[in-house]
Amino acid sequence: MSKDDVALQALFNYLREDMEACNREIVARMQSPVPLIPQLGAHLVAAGGKRLRPLLTLASAYLCGYHPSPQRRRHVGLAACVEFIHTATLLHDDVVDESVLRRGAASANAVFGNKASVLVGDFLFARSFQLMTEDGSLPVMAVLSQAAATIAEGEVLQMSMQNDLATSEDTYLKVIHGKTAALFAAACRVGAIIADSPPKDEKAVEDFGTHLGIAFQLVDDALDYVADEKVLGKTVGDDLREGKITLPLLVAFRQAEGKDRQFWERVVNEGKWQETDLAEALRLIQKTHAVEETMRRAQFFAEKAVAALDVFPESDIKSLLSDTALYAARRAH
Amino acid sequence: MSKDDVALQALFNYLREDMEACNREIVARMQSPVPLIPQLGAHLVAAGGKRLRPLLTLASAYLCGYHPSPQRRRHVGLAACVEFIHTATLLHDDVVDESVLRRGAASANAVFGNKASVLVGDFLFARSFQLMTEDGSLPVMAVLSQAAATIAEGEVLQMSMQNDLATSEDTYLKVIHGKTAALFAAACRVGAIIADSPPKDEKAVEDFGTHLGIAFQLVDDALDYVADEKVLGKTVGDDLREGKITLPLLVAFRQAEGKDRQFWERVVNEGKWQETDLAEALRLIQKTHAVEETMRRAQFFAEKAVAALDVFPESDIKSLLSDTALYAARRAH
Repeated sequence: MSKDDVALQALFNYLREDMEACNREIVARMQSPVPLIPQLGAHLVAAGGKRLRPLLTLASAYLCGYHPSPQRRRHVGLAACVEFIHTATLLHDDVVDESVLRRGAASANAVFGNKASVLVGDFLFARSFQLMTEDGSLPVMAVLSQAAATIAEGEVLQMSMQNDLATSEDTYLKVIHGKTAALFAAACRVGAIIADSPPKDEKAVEDFGTHLGIAFQLVDDALDYVADEKVLGKTVGDDLREGKITLPLLVAFRQAEGKDRQFWERVVNEGKWQETDLAEALRLIQKTHAVEETMRRAQFFAEKAVAALDVFPESDIKSLLSDTALYAARRAH
Repeated sequence: MSKDDVALQALFNYLREDMEACNREIVARMQSPVPLIPQLGAHLVAAGGKRLRPLLTLASAYLCGYHPSPQRRRHVGLAACVEFIHTATLLHDDVVDESVLRRGAASANAVFGNKASVLVGDFLFARSFQLMTEDGSLPVMAVLSQAAATIAEGEVLQMSMQNDLATSEDTYLKVIHGKTAALFAAACRVGAIIADSPPKDEKAVEDFGTHLGIAFQLVDDALDYVADEKVLGKTVGDDLREGKITLPLLVAFRQAEGKDRQFWERVVNEGKWQETDLAEALRLIQKTHAVEETMRRAQFFAEKAVAALDVFPESDIKSLLSDTALYAARRAH
């Protein structure tokens, strides 16, 4: 077990009872009289996943002084709601990216087809709004519906800059803010809202989520160029195959000259990718230390995430959240 | 101009000021810093469409005694919200159906690609929830988020029964209830809710919407086998090409014997469709009066829709809604 697993596992253990309730809620709310929906849902649940976003909602709530009770279970429903939004976007992402693997297993679109993934994604998205409506908090709904719009904007922006090495790092950061950090931030804010936090604390956990989300996505983008397929649960070089512009690629391209530059222009800008190009691409990534540079940025954002929690007094949950952020930026898979 | 256009146009004229405000709201709320989103939005707005669902929200509100004022404009925002949900599902439908035409123009997925259609659909869906949240009524949100889930369930069910002539009419009715009637019903209910109607009136407009939606979809399914491409704005026989099971097909198959039966089994169940089969398919549809039978059912549901309005006293808006229902069941395109 690597260190990031240990940190995440410690957070999970601390929140075990709630997380198990959240998982039960997820399974229960994927039910439908249309059998294909729970079937595809079971495939997603079986595929696992870190459940990082519901963990953030629960942890933020406790950090902000939330007290659950048998009559006060809204943290569970909202944690499930956050995971539903995430799962819906994953299903649609895999269609958009034409992925065949997700978390080491066949992706839903590969097993059930693109159509099912689009429609079940819509169902989960609708279900998430039903969960919010049942909870009944307008501030929570405002945060989560804004996050859902921001995610879609981030994904569209990412698509618009595909195969374009002239993309600026600033635009890249906007994309990862939208596609990943916005929901991390919203997941944290929801926890603060249900704890009736003052605006200062709500802002602090929101910032924590934003920086953690950026760090998390930076690491993800770095690992696409190095990871062992068995460990990462996806094929290496997927982003390159799709012409997806990420930081390691931008770093490598910035330093490329002569025929290295021509290589990137051919495989990325012109999209003339062949599987035999993978070795050369990985060599150029290595030569320019692009992965290390990306990981350094991830570390920077993880530290910003930890600093955002300074407003809170020391506590077990604060330590667990800080560890999660720091180790997320160091994870090897 | 055909009679259904006249009825719809009269309803539009009666609600012109609100509908124009609704259209402005739709354009305004499709804005985004990501240029592709308003670009695709403009394509959808330019393609037109009847805006039937927002008309239903507005008409139901007035039927139930709603009084707008400069300070009370929620009917406009919610009418736009309903259209956003509809547009999001259209975008995803066209991806799922691989359609190239929509309302006589190139469909968004044909122009912008499937990826953009999936993601902008998600954006519009999220935006619709932002509009609901801004409105702030939990009963409205409950109705619309339930409708969104039911639409997705209807679409998944439709997909599950593709290429299966053993589908029952009852299952077919469940599909069209989900994919079409649920949003018609919700659009009407939202109007009643903002008019603070008693439950009896809310139920009456909901029933009106449900029956009208079923009638509308029956006519749509009938016209797929007869309509002039220039008028309908889509190619004839699309449903057949996709193996989509609709009532005309079920009616024709029920009466088919011998080689007619084998024909349907080959082109639908086995999916061995060739363009040269279209003429024979249309001949068998005609021979069994399958279109006429489907239109008769549509007429039946349209009359049920009109009857649902019996609880309301006579008024201009009641007549306009009744006419819309009756002519919807008779429309020739």
